[in-house]
Amino acid sequence: MESTGSLKVVVIGASAAGLRAACRARRLLGKAKITVIDQGSYISYGACGMPYFVSGDIENVDKLRSTPYGLVRDPDFFSAAKDLEVLTMTRVERINRKERKVLCKAVETQDETEIAYDKLVIAAGASPNVLPGVEKKSPRITTFKTLHDAISIKKALAKGEIRKVGIIGGGFIGCELAESFGSLWGAEVVMIEAAPQILPGIMDEETARGVEAYLKSEDVEIHTGCPVEEVTDTGDGVVIKTKDGSIEADHAVMALGVKPQNSLAVECGIDIGELGGIVVDKQMRTSDPDIYAAGDVIEVKHAISGKPALMPLGSLANRQGRVAGSNIGGKKDGFGPVVGSAALKVFDLNVACTGLTERAAAEAGFDASCAWGTFSDRPEYYPESENVLLKLVFEKGTQRLLGMQGYGTGEVVKRVDLLASLLKKEGRLDDLIDSEFAYAPPFAPAVDPLFSLGCAAQNAVREGVEGLSPGADCGGRTIIDVRTPEEMENDPIPLDGIINIPLEELRKRWEEVPKDKPVLLVCSKGLRSAESTRIMLENGIKDAVYLGGGILMKASWET
Amino acid sequence: MESTGSLKVVVIGASAAGLRAACRARRLLGKAKITVIDQGSYISYGACGMPYFVSGDIENVDKLRSTPYGLVRDPDFFSAAKDLEVLTMTRVERINRKERKVLCKAVETQDETEIAYDKLVIAAGASPNVLPGVEKKSPRITTFKTLHDAISIKKALAKGEIRKVGIIGGGFIGCELAESFGSLWGAEVVMIEAAPQILPGIMDEETARGVEAYLKSEDVEIHTGCPVEEVTDTGDGVVIKTKDGSIEADHAVMALGVKPQNSLAVECGIDIGELGGIVVDKQMRTSDPDIYAAGDVIEVKHAISGKPALMPLGSLANRQGRVAGSNIGGKKDGFGPVVGSAALKVFDLNVACTGLTERAAAEAGFDASCAWGTFSDRPEYYPESENVLLKLVFEKGTQRLLGMQGYGTGEVVKRVDLLASLLKKEGRLDDLIDSEFAYAPPFAPAVDPLFSLGCAAQNAVREGVEGLSPGADCGGRTIIDVRTPEEMENDPIPLDGIINIPLEELRKRWEEVPKDKPVLLVCSKGLRSAESTRIMLENGIKDAVYLGGGILMKASWET
Repeated sequence: MESTGSLKVVVIGASAAGLRAACRARRLLGKAKITVIDQGSYISYGACGMPYFVSGDIENVDKLRSTPYGLVRDPDFFSAAKDLEVLTMTRVERINRKERKVLCKAVETQDETEIAYDKLVIAAGASPNVLPGVEKKSPRITTFKTLHDAISIKKALAKGEIRKVGIIGGGFIGCELAESFGSLWGAEVVMIEAAPQILPGIMDEETARGVEAYLKSEDVEIHTGCPVEEVTDTGDGVVIKTKDGSIEADHAVMALGVKPQNSLAVECGIDIGELGGIVVDKQMRTSDPDIYAAGDVIEVKHAISGKPALMPLGSLANRQGRVAGSNIGGKKDGFGPVVGSAALKVFDLNVACTGLTERAAAEAGFDASCAWGTFSDRPEYYPESENVLLKLVFEKGTQRLLGMQGYGTGEVVKRVDLLASLLKKEGRLDDLIDSEFAYAPPFAPAVDPLFSLGCAAQNAVREGVEGLSPGADCGGRTIIDVRTPEEMENDPIPLDGIINIPLEELRKRWEEVPKDKPVLLVCSKGLRSAESTRIMLENGIKDAVYLGGGILMKASWET
Repeated sequence: MESTGSLKVVVIGASAAGLRAACRARRLLGKAKITVIDQGSYISYGACGMPYFVSGDIENVDKLRSTPYGLVRDPDFFSAAKDLEVLTMTRVERINRKERKVLCKAVETQDETEIAYDKLVIAAGASPNVLPGVEKKSPRITTFKTLHDAISIKKALAKGEIRKVGIIGGGFIGCELAESFGSLWGAEVVMIEAAPQILPGIMDEETARGVEAYLKSEDVEIHTGCPVEEVTDTGDGVVIKTKDGSIEADHAVMALGVKPQNSLAVECGIDIGELGGIVVDKQMRTSDPDIYAAGDVIEVKHAISGKPALMPLGSLANRQGRVAGSNIGGKKDGFGPVVGSAALKVFDLNVACTGLTERAAAEAGFDASCAWGTFSDRPEYYPESENVLLKLVFEKGTQRLLGMQGYGTGEVVKRVDLLASLLKKEGRLDDLIDSEFAYAPPFAPAVDPLFSLGCAAQNAVREGVEGLSPGADCGGRTIIDVRTPEEMENDPIPLDGIINIPLEELRKRWEEVPKDKPVLLVCSKGLRSAESTRIMLENGIKDAVYLGGGILMKASWET
């Protein structure tokens, strides 16, 4: 059995997108010559698992690059199992579109070679952003992008060299690293974020505050709205100079996101988008019809905003790689606009989001409205039930769903996945309310949080029962706490002038309700207070709203 | 604050559907007089939690009927919190449609009263099926429908009176009870099912076999294809006489499903459907426009088959109740056709399904095709990853999704929920492949099982790479095992004549592949064998298929 080489396919980048494209092309083109080129020595590893390798949850680095049945995914594996030639430690220096070949240089020997292609896939990935002026890294000031980064950090932790770390950037990787450094190794963690909140790309401020509060409860020190001006290696540690003062630590990690590694594409004149990613069509073809691109190096189209977006996610990279490989192999598969779901676990908190935040929705020109709710993810009587705290973003007039953010120790992710599925079909509130869930007490309550959240949103729009953002101040409203006396005593609202009337007594103690003032109804999760709000509105109190998500979603009462 | 009674609403049944309808009507009709009538003494309890009460996971029965904030949901609670009058231990004897009133009788005193209505909701629920000839129950031969059933069974278990139980019926409740009796109490469990498989309503035979194998590994004795002829109370135990012999036990539970409690509706001449449920329109109105019905007493329309269906599920009952209440309150909400998702946890096995089984699809006239797969629910390198075993049913020509069944110790339910959401929108394989998942290693692999399953289905339809049902016999095919030598040694296929060639060696050991026989490629989960099948097809072996779902999904090699 020999390949009698017809089509020559070259793939730049041996990570998710590149290898997926190569494998898919191989499956469709049994006889093609397929070469994958990567500048690194480790290929096809689970980069998203690196925080769990550093934390110690995953002991051996080889686990991140092995098949489920125990083979290491190295060039020999890809040669034997997939019939691909994989060249590692080989950098592509230039793409010669006219002659359809790539110029390569061996990283160690500096030997140059040329490889001809009929079809080329650029899956060069992304490179980590660094602070201006801190371009030149020291062993104590690193990024967290490659397996080499992860290995060297874990070594330093194991040697006891990092007892305190400064994490610069409060995005996904920053939050995951907070746990990696903190949980097993017990390192002191300081997180420094330039934006006014952590996770600015995927959450609005009031939901991010909930995640911040949780991180703080796990002893992570957080500075938001705090740009870093300089990071210096002092020889036995680092000094992180910020707007608000200096932080000393043993190590600094820059977790500032990534940018498309577009230099090869730029140099050969392929179209680059406004965000710096390669522009591709639905078939993952670039402006050169013989060149495809996939993975973190490209721009995608956001399904809701309609705008270009950078979404460096392993899940999308795999799908894009498959589509590129299919089309090279003659199958006209397509990759459509994306809604951009993402998830994150930090300590025991689950965080997930999909679609647009309220802020992004406003920027995209939507007249967005929101609903908040805290829910039990299983029946309350079930021993393992935990809370999920959700924020739904929708368009007011059309009731079209725009996005959702959630966090909590309960099952957030499956609800976000379901919402993403509705977003892709331009679903409305009605579709959310109409969703069916496989219900049994170990998995979900009979009335799913998403159903309740959809009803809350619809009750606001149709029936005027409105929730106030848990991030808003109370705006001079008289607060009526409708919880039970026990709840009020155990967890009082730390403000003066609260009127305490449990929902169960609201009708018979009606004379205690102030009739001529704006009121804010408050309970623990937002359900009883919503019901109380309705009683207010029905009985002539015109300006009544409830605290969305309840006390559990309100990170702070300070105004 | 007084209700000045305008509209009179009466609701029959104080469980999920009835109370939800009453509460919703109350919220929209502040001044209506709303009365809810129930023949039992316990109302508004989490019936789906009863197996967990019996098992001991939930200690106190009051937990099943309490609010999250600790109040017992009894008539006083509903009066104070919801402004509803709830009459318990009161049976509705007759509905007088002409005079729009219901005739009630107090269960204890036999006192009769009449209650007038403007709008009536029948939410009378369902009653448990019993074996013919075993209508008259003894304390040792019971059903499992009410809280009284659960309490008396738990008492007997606690007293040590049930060391061996016969569960008649291998449906949802039967499976849940197998755990309830077995896990904490250590009772010996024998399950007896008339159909050739357990869970016949929601699974096809080959997937049910997987669940059976799991139950057997937890020491549940299972007899399928085994109708029960008679059950006798011997005074100190029971004898269950079946087609295949007699089984002695201390207790027998009939878990034979439920039927709509339609007698009131039948007697007053409301339309009843072919399956015995009350017929309602989208607004939950019966053939009498002043009478609504909701919950287990009605028939719904199946979204895929288009046929009437009985779906006694708490999640649907809640939604139907809300729709009935909305419409009584003047909001024109609707309840559409359902796809019928369901879930079940038994020991550590998660089971879920949605839409049509292959069998039901054939009965509904679809030309259905299937794909099977075993997947890790998280990246394999992540410590907590577990398997999910999935079967997808779709229409061959249109590639329309028809249903999915899944089981495994991994996260099955969220995948079923997502598929349900696509079913409701008449999704196709492309939609499944295009789904976005909130990906992070603690939640899902970068390539989600649903994506892989969708690709497997599409590869079969478009590219001829077909999986053989794990329930099929090998049909005289030569089996080629493409696992690694270690896997083959640790878990050999118990058949003669197996050819062992790992995928990684398939190309170089091509001469060992028989060229003129039908072959079956086998691996552990179905991925490597699918890839191997493609290599066969490409290289001229025309009749090659792979074992769908792999060895892990094959319950038995016996033919």
